[in-house]
Order: sequence, then C-alpha cells, then structure tokens
Amino acid sequence: MLAMTSAQRFLAACSCKPVDRTPVWMMRQAGRYLPEYRAVRERTDFLTLCKSPQLAAEVSLQPIRRFEMDACIVFSDILIPVEAMGAPVAFTDAGPKLERPVRDMADVDALRVPRAEDAPYVLDTLRLLRSELGGETALVGFAGAPFTLASYLVEGGGSKTFASLKRLMYAEPATLHALLAKLAETIAQYCVDQVEAGAQAIQLFDTWAGDLTPRAYEHFALPYQRSIIARIKSCGVPAILFVNGSSGVLELMAQSGADVLSLDWRIDLGVARERIGNGCALQGNVDPTVLLSVPHAVKAEAAAALRSAGPSGHILNLGHGVLPATPLECVRAFIEAPLSA
Amino acid sequence: MLAMTSAQRFLAACSCKPVDRTPVWMMRQAGRYLPEYRAVRERTDFLTLCKSPQLAAEVSLQPIRRFEMDACIVFSDILIPVEAMGAPVAFTDAGPKLERPVRDMADVDALRVPRAEDAPYVLDTLRLLRSELGGETALVGFAGAPFTLASYLVEGGGSKTFASLKRLMYAEPATLHALLAKLAETIAQYCVDQVEAGAQAIQLFDTWAGDLTPRAYEHFALPYQRSIIARIKSCGVPAILFVNGSSGVLELMAQSGADVLSLDWRIDLGVARERIGNGCALQGNVDPTVLLSVPHAVKAEAAAALRSAGPSGHILNLGHGVLPATPLECVRAFIEAPLSA
Repeated sequence: MLAMTSAQRFLAACSCKPVDRTPVWMMRQAGRYLPEYRAVRERTDFLTLCKSPQLAAEVSLQPIRRFEMDACIVFSDILIPVEAMGAPVAFTDAGPKLERPVRDMADVDALRVPRAEDAPYVLDTLRLLRSELGGETALVGFAGAPFTLASYLVEGGGSKTFASLKRLMYAEPATLHALLAKLAETIAQYCVDQVEAGAQAIQLFDTWAGDLTPRAYEHFALPYQRSIIARIKSCGVPAILFVNGSSGVLELMAQSGADVLSLDWRIDLGVARERIGNGCALQGNVDPTVLLSVPHAVKAEAAAALRSAGPSGHILNLGHGVLPATPLECVRAFIEAPLSA
Repeated sequence: MLAMTSAQRFLAACSCKPVDRTPVWMMRQAGRYLPEYRAVRERTDFLTLCKSPQLAAEVSLQPIRRFEMDACIVFSDILIPVEAMGAPVAFTDAGPKLERPVRDMADVDALRVPRAEDAPYVLDTLRLLRSELGGETALVGFAGAPFTLASYLVEGGGSKTFASLKRLMYAEPATLHALLAKLAETIAQYCVDQVEAGAQAIQLFDTWAGDLTPRAYEHFALPYQRSIIARIKSCGVPAILFVNGSSGVLELMAQSGADVLSLDWRIDLGVARERIGNGCALQGNVDPTVLLSVPHAVKAEAAAALRSAGPSGHILNLGHGVLPATPLECVRAFIEAPLSA
C-alpha cells in the first residue's frame, strides 16, 4: 500500500478503511509532560493560554514537532463553552472551580446558549492550526458532552462520587434534563463552528458518563450524545466519543452514532470489537500509567493493543490523558509502536 | 415456601438455592450515616474502635437493630492485617496513610507474615458477634485482597491513578509479585482464622483491581484471589468477591472460584448473569448515591436490581459502601425493598 499522510491515515481509520499503518496520537498530548509546554505555562496561566490563539496553536503543535503524531488536537478545555454560557470557571491546581454551582431550575434558566462570538478563541486557534498543518496532520476539535459538563456545573468542580449530580438526577430528573438540553444545544453549535473553522474530526468527551448505571446512561447521557453526534456528522466529519470506564455501557455507547468509540484500558479491544460488531472504529486504549514505567513495557502494552484491535478501524491512543510525570522516552516508545507492529 | 431465618436466607442465596425472598445488607452498613455510630466515634477514634472487640461488636450490630439486615459484617478495616505485618497505618480524615510506603524488594522483605495473636481483636469481635447473633443473622467476615492491599502499601495511602503501584507493576513485576505473595499468605490465614472465630461467609475486597487492564488483572489480581478463595472454601463457608468497576474483567472474576460475585452499579445484573452463566451468585448493585436522593427513587432502583437479577442466586446490596450523608429513610427504603418485590 502507498504511504499515506497522517491526515489520510487518521481519517481512513475513522471510517474503517484500509491504512498503511495504524494512526496514533495521545489524549492531552499538549501538556505538562513536555518541557516546552511547561516553559509556556511558566509565563502564562491556563485560562489565558486557552484564550490566546497564537499561544494555544503553538502548544497544540509542540507534541507534533517532537513526536509526529498523526493527529493534532486543539489546545483548549471542555469548560471553555460553559464559561461562555455565563458560569465563570477558575482553573486552580486542585482542578476547575465553578463560582456558582447549578442546583435548581432557576440556576439552569440563568444560563444562556452562547454564540460563536462569545468564545471566538478556540475557533481562531483552529484556523491558525489548519493553516499551519496544511492538511498533512489531521486537525481534531473537541467538546465536553452534556452529562460530563453538567457534572462540573452541578458539583462546582471535579468529584469522586458525583453526589450532588446524582441526587439531582434521582430526585429532580426534570431539572437535570433541562440543564442537559441547554448544554446539548450549546455544544452541538460549538462543534459545527469548530468544523467550519477547520477541524477535520470532533472528539466528544463524555468522560464521566461511565460512572452511570446502564439505565441512567440511556436516559441522561445517550440522547444528548446522539443529537450532538448527528450534528457533527451532518458537517461531513467523523465524531469520536470518549467515555472513561465504558465497559458496562459499550453497546449503548455504540448506539450514539459515533464513527469512533474511544475506550479506556479496562476492557480488551478484541472483546469490545466482538461486543459491538464492525459498525464503528475503536480508539485506545493503553493505560496512561504504563508510560510512567519503562520504554520496553510501553512497547509491549502498545503492541498488545495493536494486536487486539487488528489492522483496520483502529486509532492507537491512551485510555485517558497522558500524565504530567510521563518521561519523554516512554512517549516516544508509544508513538513509534505502530511503525514496528 | 416456609419463612427462613436471615442466616438461612443469606447462605442459601450464596449457593444459588431457593429462598423465601432475596436477602439484603449494605457494604459499610456500620458507619457514619448512623447517629448511634457517630455517637461512638465522638469518644473513640477509628483505630481504637477497630481494636476494641466490645465496641466493634456494638457498632457491627447497630444497623441490624435498626433495620434488620440479613447479614452482619464485622466492623474492622482491610488495613488491620497490614498493620500486623509491620506497616503502621494512620487513619486520618483524608484516608489511611502508611508511615513507610513499600517501594522495593528490601521493603517487601521487611514485612512479616503475622500470626493470629498479632491482631486478635477482629477474631475476638467475631466471637462476640456470633454469640450475640445466635445464628439468626448471617455473620460475615472480610479481608482486603492482595492487589488492593498492595495499592495502599505502595502508594502510601489512597490514590486516583495508582501511579507508583503501576510503575512498579510494569517496570519491576517481580517485586510486586513478591509483595502480593506475602499478602496472599497473610490474608489466606486471616480468613481461615475468621471462619474459626465464627464467620459464616467471607467477603474478599479487591476494590481497586477493576482499575487494571484485563491482562494485568489476570496476572496481578486473579492468582492471589484464587489461592485465598480456595482456602476460604476449604473451611466450608462461601467466599464473596467484590471488585469495583468490574465489567471489563467479569469473566476473569468468575474464574476466581468465588461463590458470590459482588458487583458495582456500572453493569446490569441480567447482562452480568448472561456473561458468566449460572456458576455463582451475584451480589449488588444499586449505586450508593441513589440513597442520597429520595425513598421512591431508592425503591425504583432496588426493584430494578431485583428484577434484573431474578429470584435466586442474588443478594441485594449496594455497588459500593453506603455514603456518610445518606438519610436513614433511604436506607429503610433500600432494606425493605425485597419485602415488597
């Protein structure tokens, strides 16, 4: 087979077409494990970086320059559109903090559906990246899915048990549905805007939906994923859906209509393929903590993922974001794994 | 069918025999959601309580007196035998802290396999409970499984990503296996001692093994679960195995030989039954956060679990420990659910 560009390889894998080799990138690849990223962060706080297109484009490109990933994901945060809805977010070392958590219907009513002009920076960053990459490396946009964004809005930040969110879900489901619907409208338009700005694929992060019972996933996560994914696909680009801890809801996840299911490491990719059939591609799923160890272990785990997934319909990735303490030689071993498979 | 005692009902369900109704209890049922427990804790710290048989028996009985659960689990902590191995533990509000985390082979060699005399309190508590319960309510002993105990020993406490543990696992597997083998020897004897002291079933908590890839579970969790469970069964009592987030390793979990698999809420019990067949009973699996909401939601979720599991080979329980903020009326709705099913 003739050699493909990274973008061709990535997009072919998204639609389960033949590839010259499995494409590879890493979630959170523009991040603290890179010395050049830490250098930027020494003089710029996280939120300023998200809102500065030139700088955000620069850090998005850093991993590509060093390791030649097949995809470049725009540097941003899933809570950026939430801020534009009228819910200010502070990014602290202990994670994001919402000034005013959403707790009742009045709080939901106070949120607005923003327009593209309310948060132009991500779109500007995408335009810069598309021009810089010249179509050689695939440009991936992203957004948080409604359930996961609602978890931050209701909890007021990250959470271990999602106690406030779950209480709302089980005691006042109509309030949560109203919040999810408003988020879905916001996020669908945000994804369309990203495609218009140059994104060639959109990854939807429903990171915390894997904490739901399958019944709750079906009611509070799936319908909102479906409506957003339908909008993404209507723009002619593939939709990738990531859920952490998804093995109990895998068949439901496949009903989202996503072109690619991005899986965590707690399930074997071959088993996942058997369970969902050949309707979509798989992305993943090496445990990011493997990259805290030694290159030969990284190679072995990446090779195992490549073997389990098979030669087509697979994008090699981690099962969650790369960790800040990851040594560069382990990242290199990971990114080079498909070359020697 | 004639009415059964709680112990008869619980033990029949453990071996998939017919029951007059599904038995029910809650993980961590002797805990902070009970005002009478909080009253004891106001004058006694956690570790002292674990080491005081009269008081530990008293708090073990508190939930039974108020709600009539079918099983009484001894009040203790999975780290009590770890302390007896020579690894002192401080129980703080932020969770357990180990004074000297295990990081290399010398640290493993320094741990000893304790004898029953080194930690007599749990066995004394069981003797008091067995006498007090008179065989009416099933008496359940418990222990942490090697992988989960190793996670605390290596991390030095609780962890989100298990970074140190995983680094050891992937970079120096022989060191981790040595630690796991020593823990398995300790825990197997500890379980046998608990049965001799009156426990009628043993629940083995491999809470964090669900964070492993299936391949890693097979190497670092399953063999140690199997050896301990074989020892428990050789005493003639059923073994219950709990793993949090187990849906990716369910078939492997069933290979442990456990009589009962205790499942978290992220999988449907009917789906779990289809996947593993009829070889063992299931315990679980209502999301503990449901009990933070309102009694009618608790009833609906418990009824759904009862329906999914079917009338035999099921012990109704939560998918993880009951949360401290749980209102008593929601606990009552949960415990009474099998009566109206």
